[in-house]
Amino acid sequence: MTTKNAFYAQSGGVTSVINASAAGVIETARQHKDKIGKVFAGRNGIIGALTEDLIDTDLESAEDIAALKNTPSGGFGSCRFKLKSLEDNKREYERLIEVFKAHNIGYFFYNGGGDSADTCFKVSQLSEKMGYPVQAIHVPKTVDNDLPITDNCPGFGSVAKYIAVSTLEASFDVRSMAATSTKIFVIEVMGRHAGWIAAAGALVEDHNIPVLTLFPEVEFDKDKFLAAVDAKVKEHDFCTIVVSEGCHWPDGTFLAEQGTRDSFGHAQLGGAAPVVANMIKEALGYKFHWAVADYLQRAARHLASESDVEQAYALGKAAVEKALEGKNSIMPTVVRESSSPYKWSIGEAPLSEVANVEKMMPMDFISDDGYGITDKCKEYLYPLIQGEAYPPYENGMPKYVTMKGISVEQKLEKFEL
Amino acid sequence: MTTKNAFYAQSGGVTSVINASAAGVIETARQHKDKIGKVFAGRNGIIGALTEDLIDTDLESAEDIAALKNTPSGGFGSCRFKLKSLEDNKREYERLIEVFKAHNIGYFFYNGGGDSADTCFKVSQLSEKMGYPVQAIHVPKTVDNDLPITDNCPGFGSVAKYIAVSTLEASFDVRSMAATSTKIFVIEVMGRHAGWIAAAGALVEDHNIPVLTLFPEVEFDKDKFLAAVDAKVKEHDFCTIVVSEGCHWPDGTFLAEQGTRDSFGHAQLGGAAPVVANMIKEALGYKFHWAVADYLQRAARHLASESDVEQAYALGKAAVEKALEGKNSIMPTVVRESSSPYKWSIGEAPLSEVANVEKMMPMDFISDDGYGITDKCKEYLYPLIQGEAYPPYENGMPKYVTMKGISVEQKLEKFEL
Repeated sequence: MTTKNAFYAQSGGVTSVINASAAGVIETARQHKDKIGKVFAGRNGIIGALTEDLIDTDLESAEDIAALKNTPSGGFGSCRFKLKSLEDNKREYERLIEVFKAHNIGYFFYNGGGDSADTCFKVSQLSEKMGYPVQAIHVPKTVDNDLPITDNCPGFGSVAKYIAVSTLEASFDVRSMAATSTKIFVIEVMGRHAGWIAAAGALVEDHNIPVLTLFPEVEFDKDKFLAAVDAKVKEHDFCTIVVSEGCHWPDGTFLAEQGTRDSFGHAQLGGAAPVVANMIKEALGYKFHWAVADYLQRAARHLASESDVEQAYALGKAAVEKALEGKNSIMPTVVRESSSPYKWSIGEAPLSEVANVEKMMPMDFISDDGYGITDKCKEYLYPLIQGEAYPPYENGMPKYVTMKGISVEQKLEKFEL
Repeated sequence: MTTKNAFYAQSGGVTSVINASAAGVIETARQHKDKIGKVFAGRNGIIGALTEDLIDTDLESAEDIAALKNTPSGGFGSCRFKLKSLEDNKREYERLIEVFKAHNIGYFFYNGGGDSADTCFKVSQLSEKMGYPVQAIHVPKTVDNDLPITDNCPGFGSVAKYIAVSTLEASFDVRSMAATSTKIFVIEVMGRHAGWIAAAGALVEDHNIPVLTLFPEVEFDKDKFLAAVDAKVKEHDFCTIVVSEGCHWPDGTFLAEQGTRDSFGHAQLGGAAPVVANMIKEALGYKFHWAVADYLQRAARHLASESDVEQAYALGKAAVEKALEGKNSIMPTVVRESSSPYKWSIGEAPLSEVANVEKMMPMDFISDDGYGITDKCKEYLYPLIQGEAYPPYENGMPKYVTMKGISVEQKLEKFEL
């Protein structure tokens, strides 16, 4: 086996643990210097490969690479840049292979969601055809938890923990004020078309919190919802509502798109939470508060789930190990061995089966009324939020690392994106 | 000294550490059973006293009272109920004294902000006049940090830590996506008329984050602000904005009140964050994300500051000790002995000097351009966010306690509020 370099890139929306996967890739590669020379990271993701803007991770200290395990966000930068199909944009794929060739890159570790799995798959196919075979391994990452085959996706467990804990805390707050003040608390969560994150908020039911959850998987029914809210308030004096950003009306319109206009007549971009809160106020008169956690949830490394951090690291490590075993065009996965006690191992899936498949929440995870989760769902979720992997603190603030990010010398002509 | 019972009530918006003060009061009183018989807590605050709805805290286990130290929200319920002036509503004050008399209550511990300090002061005056003297001690609490004399208020340090950490984490997230995606992140924080919480967000400047802070103390100047945002983005490729809910235009209108109407023509209640974000998008075209932390920030016991938890407990404890020393109509305070290393002790202030005085942020805490904080402000803030007082966890979730809340038998006629 000759020595080849590796290329690592972060893709799409970042998470609180994607850097743990980066640490898993880089630390494991460093243990195999005879086979993997250097790990180059794409500055701002795959764009860094296309523009030949590579970061030499060898110039980052062992201490800083280890600190990536505790640091949210994308340490090398990420991007939302989907390569088009091979037919539509062969030029970009060929450029990737050219850059890989110029820098003696034989391993491609791509850390992302569905789109990047697809890109990874195509690169492995094309590189073979072009006579410069690259081993392409996809490292799963997405807070949306919508990749197939793997039991869960790194990034999700920590968001789930953050949303479950935050919803519980805010619900305690509202409960103690409800007699004379706020009776409705609405929290809006991420997750796009999948209700996984919203489901985590519904876990507060196990802590005696009256909660209604609005999933993207369930068409919004205003009258039914308002009746459910009123019943909860009449019974418990307050109600917590978890609304997914992807919650929508039967015609597909998102709740957040209310046709709201500001005083100048411009369309106002709001969230789903204020829409739901105002709807309740108008119909039932209850005083409300609402929160939109937005990036706070996916960046909340301070409350990361230990099992999530461990899996993120383990999948990065496994990607390198599998590459060294000669594997290609695969994604290491999390295999659940048992839920209680939680046991998991690393498996693998062919990228041909991962690319362009979106895993939705099973309908038997959602309760019959559409506003809660089933025991089956809870059995799935609880293991993923186990353990607290706190970052170290200094002077009251977490010690998060910033990479030096030193560029590798360019060897090719400029490339226009 | 004869044995008297005590009455404890939580007032106004709750915090992540007000229950630590409750634990300080109750645990200390339990150590002096010869002087303080029972501690009765007002169910839902002072309303519990007026309606004679008292909780017998003696029926709560030592373990549960200790667990209050780790539990956010108001364990006995709180309320926003300001007693009117003595002249306007002597009836309510007299009822309070009657209830105290009926239950042999000689100590009144009132845990709240400015309004409750005022009530506490009046109760001590009136009880004397009515021939049933009650020792009234105010225990400070407010995330707004606007009580006078005390160096800081319990509740604030933890919100400050939460906002500083969350702003840092989200800023790291945006920084790693900025090349091709979001360049503006806006986080809205609480604090009413005082910029203390917003100032905590500005601490991320020390972590190389380009940040602009919009304080209630500084009139909003749209053109100047947009120019500042543009300059930050041009230099750093992204910008974080911390906006206080109290931020307002020169005419006093809050940024959140934009005259926005929904498609039915109803006034739309939004936050200041989406207003600022849309303003930037419209003028400068930058892609944005925004978050409104709302109750998440003041309930975030999972990230409480250790110094805050310790002070909250110590002030509850000191309230009882001072009562036992015969003190009346006072508030125990935090006295800062030194900032580095942080040393503090407990002092006291007469309620006559606390009631109805609002402590604003000193103007020399705000930088000359109005968008940041000075070194003096940082010296003030850092000690308050020191240490991480994590709650215990079970099955991935924090173990927060719920009081049994068993009522004391009523002895008086019903009272209409």
